[in-house]
Amino acid sequence: MSRFEPIATLLKKDRKGHTLPGELYVSEEAFAFDAEVMLKSVWLYACTVAHVKNPGDYFVFELANNSIIIVRGRDNEVRAFWNSCRHRGARICLEQKGRAPRLMCPYHQWTYGLDGKLLAARSMAEDFDKDEHGLNPVALENVGGLIFICMADNPPPIDRVKADISEQIGIYNLDTLKVAVQDDYIEDANWKLVMENNRECYHCDVGHPELISVLGTTGFGKDAPDDAAKHKEWAALGIEHDLVEFPDGWWHRIARLPLANGAVTQSIDGKLACQKLIGPFKEPETSSLSVWTQPNSWHHFCCDHVVTFSLTPIGPDKTMLRTSWLVHEDAVEGVDYDPDHIAALWRATNQQDGYFSMINHQGIANDGYAQGPYAVEEKLVEDFKDFYVAASKAALA
Amino acid sequence: MSRFEPIATLLKKDRKGHTLPGELYVSEEAFAFDAEVMLKSVWLYACTVAHVKNPGDYFVFELANNSIIIVRGRDNEVRAFWNSCRHRGARICLEQKGRAPRLMCPYHQWTYGLDGKLLAARSMAEDFDKDEHGLNPVALENVGGLIFICMADNPPPIDRVKADISEQIGIYNLDTLKVAVQDDYIEDANWKLVMENNRECYHCDVGHPELISVLGTTGFGKDAPDDAAKHKEWAALGIEHDLVEFPDGWWHRIARLPLANGAVTQSIDGKLACQKLIGPFKEPETSSLSVWTQPNSWHHFCCDHVVTFSLTPIGPDKTMLRTSWLVHEDAVEGVDYDPDHIAALWRATNQQDGYFSMINHQGIANDGYAQGPYAVEEKLVEDFKDFYVAASKAALA
Amino acid sequence: MSRFEPIATLLKKDRKGHTLPGELYVSEEAFAFDAEVMLKSVWLYACTVAHVKNPGDYFVFELANNSIIIVRGRDNEVRAFWNSCRHRGARICLEQKGRAPRLMCPYHQWTYGLDGKLLAARSMAEDFDKDEHGLNPVALENVGGLIFICMADNPPPIDRVKADISEQIGIYNLDTLKVAVQDDYIEDANWKLVMENNRECYHCDVGHPELISVLGTTGFGKDAPDDAAKHKEWAALGIEHDLVEFPDGWWHRIARLPLANGAVTQSIDGKLACQKLIGPFKEPETSSLSVWTQPNSWHHFCCDHVVTFSLTPIGPDKTMLRTSWLVHEDAVEGVDYDPDHIAALWRATNQQDGYFSMINHQGIANDGYAQGPYAVEEKLVEDFKDFYVAASKAALA
Repeated sequence: MSRFEPIATLLKKDRKGHTLPGELYVSEEAFAFDAEVMLKSVWLYACTVAHVKNPGDYFVFELANNSIIIVRGRDNEVRAFWNSCRHRGARICLEQKGRAPRLMCPYHQWTYGLDGKLLAARSMAEDFDKDEHGLNPVALENVGGLIFICMADNPPPIDRVKADISEQIGIYNLDTLKVAVQDDYIEDANWKLVMENNRECYHCDVGHPELISVLGTTGFGKDAPDDAAKHKEWAALGIEHDLVEFPDGWWHRIARLPLANGAVTQSIDGKLACQKLIGPFKEPETSSLSVWTQPNSWHHFCCDHVVTFSLTPIGPDKTMLRTSWLVHEDAVEGVDYDPDHIAALWRATNQQDGYFSMINHQGIANDGYAQGPYAVEEKLVEDFKDFYVAASKAALA
Repeated sequence: MSRFEPIATLLKKDRKGHTLPGELYVSEEAFAFDAEVMLKSVWLYACTVAHVKNPGDYFVFELANNSIIIVRGRDNEVRAFWNSCRHRGARICLEQKGRAPRLMCPYHQWTYGLDGKLLAARSMAEDFDKDEHGLNPVALENVGGLIFICMADNPPPIDRVKADISEQIGIYNLDTLKVAVQDDYIEDANWKLVMENNRECYHCDVGHPELISVLGTTGFGKDAPDDAAKHKEWAALGIEHDLVEFPDGWWHRIARLPLANGAVTQSIDGKLACQKLIGPFKEPETSSLSVWTQPNSWHHFCCDHVVTFSLTPIGPDKTMLRTSWLVHEDAVEGVDYDPDHIAALWRATNQQDGYFSMINHQGIANDGYAQGPYAVEEKLVEDFKDFYVAASKAALA
Repeated sequence: MSRFEPIATLLKKDRKGHTLPGELYVSEEAFAFDAEVMLKSVWLYACTVAHVKNPGDYFVFELANNSIIIVRGRDNEVRAFWNSCRHRGARICLEQKGRAPRLMCPYHQWTYGLDGKLLAARSMAEDFDKDEHGLNPVALENVGGLIFICMADNPPPIDRVKADISEQIGIYNLDTLKVAVQDDYIEDANWKLVMENNRECYHCDVGHPELISVLGTTGFGKDAPDDAAKHKEWAALGIEHDLVEFPDGWWHRIARLPLANGAVTQSIDGKLACQKLIGPFKEPETSSLSVWTQPNSWHHFCCDHVVTFSLTPIGPDKTMLRTSWLVHEDAVEGVDYDPDHIAALWRATNQQDGYFSMINHQGIANDGYAQGPYAVEEKLVEDFKDFYVAASKAALA
């Protein structure tokens, strides 16, 4: 692992309560390390079960040079495979998502089942064994409807994450939802800065006027005043839970947070974004359940829709932020929901965050950058950074 | 040569009958090795004598950062020079092709003869010796009208290639042809994948509907049924030869192949692409003579035109495919031939191949790629790969 | 410093009177060395005092990944700071120039005084010390109104440059001028080639028809015939000085040169570019005072305006040439001067030079490039190259 010795040296410069050394954010070497080592050693959020709703539906997850097919089989099982033909390596699925009865390589028509088995290959030598040339699998876990994949040969434990998240988001039944809108947005910043940006609302007062009118300024890492009445309401609805906050050694946070200013959902005007409610809700309810995972996702469950975010690095200063809005599978576009209305709040917020992450990246690339102190309100940023450093050191060990 | 030790290690992972390790196709390091070492150790096809038909005609051949001027002198000799002024190094020929009485650097007007000698340089010190500042030459061989260059100080042998090719293509007399159309097409793939794509027709049935209607599906590496009648016809015309197939240690293949479906030439409809026949042909004839060389060219000689292809890498995933269509020098555009008609078949085929090579490259860049087995019909792909591995090892030794 | 050992090896290949080894001009490694070592060890010209005329005016100087804020304080002092917030490193000044009462980071509103002191930061821990989190300063010197910065911890001496330049340009009183036009022009060449291009007029006869009609072909490194009458005139005006030509170990040249063909200023037609004269001139005068500094600037002082040039590398083959035209602060646009007329001469010349530098770079990137001899007329090019080599060796030592 000597190629990444400079990374090990940089990791030693980590300072408690401070940002990382600049090279870890901006250098080509750190990007190579993240893409080839660190991010391959952990579970990554890819999509929901609603993104591959029916047998034959596939969804391509890409990270740097890697491309992985997530596909639902005829047996309804969701599996993941490397997107590379076992013949001469061509990419098999060329669209980001689609539906196919079988997975056929467009180059020489080698054909695989939805379970990855090689079904047909012309003109091969007599000793060619089809059974040895199925698609290479990638580890996959279904966490209450959220699909996580891991590129490691021996994925780390995920059981507690699975238990905690499944329990709380189960009521929203992701299997009964469909994807209403999907935005793929490229930010000009390192993925870790996009994550840091997500983990604090210290910049919200000035930076996100639309967002705070609906969410208020508490909750995302700030101490929210404890609202006993709210908790009583939630208990009555059966949706009251203790905060789960990155339990020791784990990488998930779950919190139910009240919305602000009478909003009943995370929409640009606080009004319902979809008329068909989801989960246990019969009437609009003024809170949302939020889930955050290290190192690349966050999700908000409202009474009328779910919005889910994944980050994937493309290059040292290019990151894809994918946002999907899910509604009830029976909701009708133009009748029950308007795609532009449902997406407006986070679309505006994502653009603002893209700008902040970009100027953060640019400033760090400067030789005059020095590791700076996190504010009190930036505790969850520090949690992310600490996770990154620990996972990186473990991956290098 | 320690900089390229990782390449030597990768070359050791070569598997008989299988594709190369992925890094050899897609990495920056492999591209640097190919451009700076491997491709500088071998002969490369550049153009035909028809591309520099008259004294003063020049043709610029580029490969990665390198630029070479191929120019015909007043003595009718074709020579090659590095495209860099001996004063401060500026590029001398800025257009891809042209005609000039002398080669003059546009920066400070240093002026060279077509034979590379420095003729004029103002304001030089008294001890300046013009004779020592002629253009630096590059090795060049004229192989029956095909121009090959070699950037090595001691180019490898070429005599048998010269003898074999010259004998068979001599009847087409490239000196009496002219360039009717030239296409420079950039493919988004490593040059070795573009070569591999060229060396098999396993992908033709589905991938090249236009091409197979004219060429049939045999011949390009597939076993063609032996057609005794054809061979008799060719013998009568004096154009019958044994197949030359990469003789031991050499890098050329020559085959006459029958066309399909009544086609008399390699045109989109199988009909004559030029009314003025070439070579010994008085009437349309239903075969073509094909020449392939390692590592970067192939050529088809028809009764009415010649089409010639060269590959040059531009970057790890960028390759220039240059296709030239040559016709009789007396043929008149718009009367004897239509440029769009003559180019249509291979233009369509090149585009299709560009797509295949691109998805092949993308899939190999994936960490899930594994070296895969060549099909029986891919023997010539394996020949190319074996040549590449052997030449690379030799260049590193 | 072992990372730059290959650079040390290349520097040893420097040949007296010849261009540098090609890799020093075109390689990524040489660019990294220049940006991270060589150019950080010397003084660089950034702008004039007229670019930051009033308190709160800032001007952002960028070089490769670095960004530096030059700002005039309330006390009228001009200072330089790294453009990176001490909190999480974001870029603070996003525009190339502007005016602000304080320097506020757009991300989380940390706010600094114009003197760099941190004034406000919300939500910090109790032990946070504002005094330790002011903007990081960069060394700055005001040389007769020309602002130089140095990124080194221990900047080299500048006193003699300061004395010589201040004395001669003092009469133009840059404090009383304003910026009329600023052009930022990206050239596709290494910065050292743009510098070499600037240091000779060997290419002017053919390359710059507009320029030589005003400046003649002497003076920029060519031996001008000594014009006794001119010197008498200048003595009478009190502007006669001996030529200062890169005194031993120093990096500045100052010369007063007569204009040609009756021109009274460096304008496209030789006619006044601004009706309000500057400096001691009551009437148009037919000479200009020129200042050149290593490694990145040159300046021409005319009787009606000043034109000043700075170079900053952006990448191995990308360089920013910034040209500013300054006029009397009381001159009125559209009345006293026309921005297009004032800029026309050098705008045309810059474009021509951009082309020459580009073909120079392209030719040097060629493997066939060899270090070539400078012409007699290229003595100042050699002076630049020698400075570069000496400064590089010193920086590596």
